Amino acid sequence: MKTPIKVSITGAAGHIGYALAFRVASGEMFGPDQPVILRLLEMPQAMSSLNGVGMELEDCALPLLHDVVLTDDPSIGFREADYAILIGAKPRSKGMERNDLITENARIFSAQGRAINDNASQNVRVLVVGNPANTNALIAASNAPDLDPRHFTAMTRLDHNRALGQLANKTNSLVADITRMTIWGNHSMTQYPDIGNCLISGTPALEMVTRDWAIDHFIPRIQRRGAEIIEARGLSSAASAADAVVDHVRDWALGTPEGDWVSMSVPSDGSYGIAEGVVFSYPVTIKDGECEIVQGLDLDDFSLNRLNISRNELLGERAVIEDLLS
Amino acid sequence: MKTPIKVSITGAAGHIGYALAFRVASGEMFGPDQPVILRLLEMPQAMSSLNGVGMELEDCALPLLHDVVLTDDPSIGFREADYAILIGAKPRSKGMERNDLITENARIFSAQGRAINDNASQNVRVLVVGNPANTNALIAASNAPDLDPRHFTAMTRLDHNRALGQLANKTNSLVADITRMTIWGNHSMTQYPDIGNCLISGTPALEMVTRDWAIDHFIPRIQRRGAEIIEARGLSSAASAADAVVDHVRDWALGTPEGDWVSMSVPSDGSYGIAEGVVFSYPVTIKDGECEIVQGLDLDDFSLNRLNISRNELLGERAVIEDLLS
Repeated sequence: MKTPIKVSITGAAGHIGYALAFRVASGEMFGPDQPVILRLLEMPQAMSSLNGVGMELEDCALPLLHDVVLTDDPSIGFREADYAILIGAKPRSKGMERNDLITENARIFSAQGRAINDNASQNVRVLVVGNPANTNALIAASNAPDLDPRHFTAMTRLDHNRALGQLANKTNSLVADITRMTIWGNHSMTQYPDIGNCLISGTPALEMVTRDWAIDHFIPRIQRRGAEIIEARGLSSAASAADAVVDHVRDWALGTPEGDWVSMSVPSDGSYGIAEGVVFSYPVTIKDGECEIVQGLDLDDFSLNRLNISRNELLGERAVIEDLLS
Repeated sequence: MKTPIKVSITGAAGHIGYALAFRVASGEMFGPDQPVILRLLEMPQAMSSLNGVGMELEDCALPLLHDVVLTDDPSIGFREADYAILIGAKPRSKGMERNDLITENARIFSAQGRAINDNASQNVRVLVVGNPANTNALIAASNAPDLDPRHFTAMTRLDHNRALGQLANKTNSLVADITRMTIWGNHSMTQYPDIGNCLISGTPALEMVTRDWAIDHFIPRIQRRGAEIIEARGLSSAASAADAVVDHVRDWALGTPEGDWVSMSVPSDGSYGIAEGVVFSYPVTIKDGECEIVQGLDLDDFSLNRLNISRNELLGERAVIEDLLS
């Protein structure tokens, strides 16, 4: 039998964590023959709720779930973790300035970066979901000096999947027939969903939809999709966010298919003129657990301008928490 | 490509429905090469929330999900359904008598039985989750005269899985090593979780735990597990219930493994002295989509007494709604 993979999840009793834990435990993330151990973290005040999640996991009698650890102690929660999925974050409260939000979360994620550094596997892969996700990933990585910073990522896969869904819908095609979707930039309103390289059953998407539709409808809809969900459900996206986590980590572990790529926010190596180190969403291919940014894509002035706007936002976020970077 | 399987789910915007829809759509119920179409039903007042669920499903870009229909009209929601999963039910409100609860739900499920009869596939398989599940299944079947009543079932798989989890925990074994667990009776406090036939890696469970433990700890804990979850989470079981739905329907579609069985509430054929027609949880094996009640198990006086208690409860429930049975 394979050695169980240890997956740590923070904010595990929250809506996304609750939707995620059962899907990881049932084998959707690493496949039907790969046992897992879940290490679920919560704040002290949410431990009763987390205990309930632990009981429900036990009640599923899932053959791949070899152990569940429930804790509010990061040194236990991240112990020997192969994957750390950081969902818990401080949400924006009424009257809070954006810079305060960034700073408060930077404190949380710098502490988590240190705990991961000191307790997790040396090869741990980190996915930050809690917002502001890209800058949170940056600060976690910078507080984990013994780990490879390229193993710290932020999630733009939900945006990527939303973009696939909208394009499939518009062109009356199956999502499985669409390749080479790209989300560039920050997981925020400045993100740039780019269909310029998309193929639909091999045909360029821009032969099937107009540029005007992309600019006037598609891009703003993806950027504002989170708000659209909240308006309908009265709650923010949870199951679809958990689904994107499964996709992000599964592809990181098992690789991307030949001829296609996925969107992941990774530390920039300077590609496409983005300052080195900034955690920026790029098209990436993955092999043997290592991400490679897709090179050589043509970007027109419209696209370059969109990348610059999102880069500038990320540089602004970094400036706010500069003193917490090691 | 395989023909998509059409799955109707009522109460689809509720906690269990929300946990379930994404797992069906991702391929966990029927396997990784079987497309599905979801037909999600809700009450008119929950349609905005259901629209949000539909958006989130679209946002997952799931390759197996070929279509999603959102409706509050049962004649649309059950149209051509291959599987109908009835989760929505009226919960007990403050001061409501148990008989009123049974009667109000009987009205809902008799209408749903008629709608399924008139709109679903002739081979539709029905799983009732909404409580009182066994009697709701009975009344739905009795209002679907053109369909095979043996294709109407109620869910005791969550109880079954809970029992596996507790026994694995107690004996420090893996759930995958336990076979022949049985839940007898009604999905209620009178259910009888029976480890008398259980094997753990081939060894009888009763050589590894005492009868006293089973009677004093195991049985009451399974019977009261729902309340234990509510106490911890402040919410009733959702993800574990959805997981049990996946298990119940998957095994119904794909069969039970050789040498093992599962617990399902099915219309009695008189086996083990239960009145014919009563929807009673039995150990069943499944082949080619048809359930067969496991015959010839020895039941001692303790067990027979437990079965009688649960049978009497079900006969009492049936008496309350006698006039709604066709």
